Amino acid sequence: MLTNISVRDALAIVLDCVHPLPTERVPLLQSLGRTLAEDVYADINVPPFPCAAVDGYAVIAADVAGASSGQPAVLQVIEEISAGAHPTRPLRPGTAARIYTGAPVPEGADAVVMQEVTARGDEGRVQVFEPIEVGRNLRPAGEDVRAGELVMERGTWIRPAEMGMLAACGVAEPLVARQPRVLLISTGDEIKDVSEPLAPGQIRDSNTYALAGLILKYGGVVHAAHKAVDRVDDLLRIFQRHAGEVDAIVSSGGVSVGDYDLVQDVLQQVGAVKFWKVTQRPGGPVLFGTMGKIPVFGLPGYPVSCMVGFELYVRPALLKMQGRRALRKMEVVARVDQDLKATKGKTDFVRVWVALRDGAWVARVAGKQVSGRLSTMIRSNGLLVIPEDVTQVKAGQMWKVQMLDDPEVEGDPLGLIEPLG
Amino acid sequence: MLTNISVRDALAIVLDCVHPLPTERVPLLQSLGRTLAEDVYADINVPPFPCAAVDGYAVIAADVAGASSGQPAVLQVIEEISAGAHPTRPLRPGTAARIYTGAPVPEGADAVVMQEVTARGDEGRVQVFEPIEVGRNLRPAGEDVRAGELVMERGTWIRPAEMGMLAACGVAEPLVARQPRVLLISTGDEIKDVSEPLAPGQIRDSNTYALAGLILKYGGVVHAAHKAVDRVDDLLRIFQRHAGEVDAIVSSGGVSVGDYDLVQDVLQQVGAVKFWKVTQRPGGPVLFGTMGKIPVFGLPGYPVSCMVGFELYVRPALLKMQGRRALRKMEVVARVDQDLKATKGKTDFVRVWVALRDGAWVARVAGKQVSGRLSTMIRSNGLLVIPEDVTQVKAGQMWKVQMLDDPEVEGDPLGLIEPLG
Repeated sequence: MLTNISVRDALAIVLDCVHPLPTERVPLLQSLGRTLAEDVYADINVPPFPCAAVDGYAVIAADVAGASSGQPAVLQVIEEISAGAHPTRPLRPGTAARIYTGAPVPEGADAVVMQEVTARGDEGRVQVFEPIEVGRNLRPAGEDVRAGELVMERGTWIRPAEMGMLAACGVAEPLVARQPRVLLISTGDEIKDVSEPLAPGQIRDSNTYALAGLILKYGGVVHAAHKAVDRVDDLLRIFQRHAGEVDAIVSSGGVSVGDYDLVQDVLQQVGAVKFWKVTQRPGGPVLFGTMGKIPVFGLPGYPVSCMVGFELYVRPALLKMQGRRALRKMEVVARVDQDLKATKGKTDFVRVWVALRDGAWVARVAGKQVSGRLSTMIRSNGLLVIPEDVTQVKAGQMWKVQMLDDPEVEGDPLGLIEPLG
Repeated sequence: MLTNISVRDALAIVLDCVHPLPTERVPLLQSLGRTLAEDVYADINVPPFPCAAVDGYAVIAADVAGASSGQPAVLQVIEEISAGAHPTRPLRPGTAARIYTGAPVPEGADAVVMQEVTARGDEGRVQVFEPIEVGRNLRPAGEDVRAGELVMERGTWIRPAEMGMLAACGVAEPLVARQPRVLLISTGDEIKDVSEPLAPGQIRDSNTYALAGLILKYGGVVHAAHKAVDRVDDLLRIFQRHAGEVDAIVSSGGVSVGDYDLVQDVLQQVGAVKFWKVTQRPGGPVLFGTMGKIPVFGLPGYPVSCMVGFELYVRPALLKMQGRRALRKMEVVARVDQDLKATKGKTDFVRVWVALRDGAWVARVAGKQVSGRLSTMIRSNGLLVIPEDVTQVKAGQMWKVQMLDDPEVEGDPLGLIEPLG
């Protein structure tokens, strides 16, 4: 068992112990946020056939070469092709087909003139008032993707655009990694659920809810939540009961230096402790180990330490289990709004609210940085990272901030298209 | 009806027509991503009582004033207080109480010495090797939030930290805005679902899936999805059937200039068209109107135009319905990787992939910017915004990018604590 290791070393150990989960197929409408577990190739050309990009007339460009408003080209309209229909006759010189956006262009046509530059004449004729270049307003087959093309690689995060593209490629049930099932345990005789009355000496359990939110946010599911587990044999039984059902165990509390430690005791009996304590603040007293193939995270009981420990170690583990390629959090570089003291030999994560002011990111420190103050987390959208060897940060300096959520963009939503200042 | 209006004017009209939805209470575990519809006050102090911040001994600081490793203070341990227990005796000079993190400190104690600077002696005595300042390692009642304090305002987006804080404040079922129920309609005889075979002239429907993803992403629910609706009377019936059940209608296709326009015809019969066409690319042919109080968005059929139209107009509408305060998308300023031509008199939204390179944001243009190429959207995480009066962008210039998703942060996840370069 390693102890007092660096954040970097701790994360490397965690990632070394977690592996992609088995896969499953899900209906496309339920695939948002999942991660592709297979490469996806286009089964057909998209679009499948050359089609009109506008409403107008399919023509042979050479037929309208000299057209002008004074001397329009006059063509015989041989058919009308709606989207979804199929052209029945090829174009020959001197002919055109009325066509609508998305409809297949007939054989022989090499451009589509927009209806705005035409006028319908007598006896099925159309006047065209402008010349057109070959290929204009005509989407070739495979313009978007070509049949057989690798369109999305495994490890791709499924966003709305990927959902659309999966439909276009004929994938009605994408193969994705299973969602990690997480067993959630909070320790401490003193904690009570929000739905229960509080006796003297008791406090409400906030960690279970914050951790459940984090698990959902990063693509996991809460398999079960056990609360106020405070005896080694109870904890042992819970671990063993769920061992075959879950992909990760996350506990909060019960990892301090006192007589009431729990997770470490249990892990020493039925698993292996990999490290205990990381040189970081907050969230230093974090325990990590494994029970069989299941990673076990013993997070500290303080709400801030618990959440920071989750963001640093559980989040990348859950993403790796889902097969995600990008594990790193988004970062911005922001101007710090006040002097800060940091701990020599520890990586400090200072809760800040990042916002855009006069075109630059500013990090406002979210109040007194005490691990028990969950209120600092609701006033934060990022963690300002101060490396181990730095002990002082000065107001006005630029520092790297790991974002927990999107930075807030000030100003009215209409401002979003203002020219760059 | 207004036509050819600016993005800014169009968005102002949309926001003017949408209003916060009625509210509902949801179980706390299901509240992630919802928006608070009430101010939340703390019902008790958090923590509710003064408690130990570490494992150790509750003491009277004056008793250990002169303590050192050579001359420890010796105190009588009168009681042991676990978390969840209740102290039964006040401390008097010369006494201490064994105490664990989170346990209530006894009356009279004004500091907690860490067990690491103590040694247990004979006959229930403890040696303390260091002096301590008053208040040290002791969390006062209300350190996090005070009873009666306004902790979260209505309009707050519920993230994991807010879930934890709602639990701490005794809110088991927060009051939130209802999720917007969206009726989704795709028009076009030529479109087929991914589950159906394709006949000649037909294409697969990608818009329904991309739009469903966007609706879910921004907190809505797909109430119903009707496909390939291509007759005015069918569309009219669908509008009327769902009128009392939905909060918004989003259609794609059927808003071009051709003979087959649909949404506009229906809206002119049963509602009001507010604007038609915005001076933007892509996504210019967008129709907006209302049927009673329901906003109706007629998006273009091209997949890119459709998604960009959604991001610009439907997204802020859905967020406003949910009572969200921040409607503006996150923006970064990024260096453009190639020359770009833009349309005079139109706001251009260029699909780009934003990534961090050598500490700066770079926007890589996601291939040929054709509205039918959904593949440009899967290669994008942002829209580079080129205002109406600009016609050229040069490689190397810095431009504002509206992020669709988090920018990609290159490099291994362990890099996240590297000192600022």
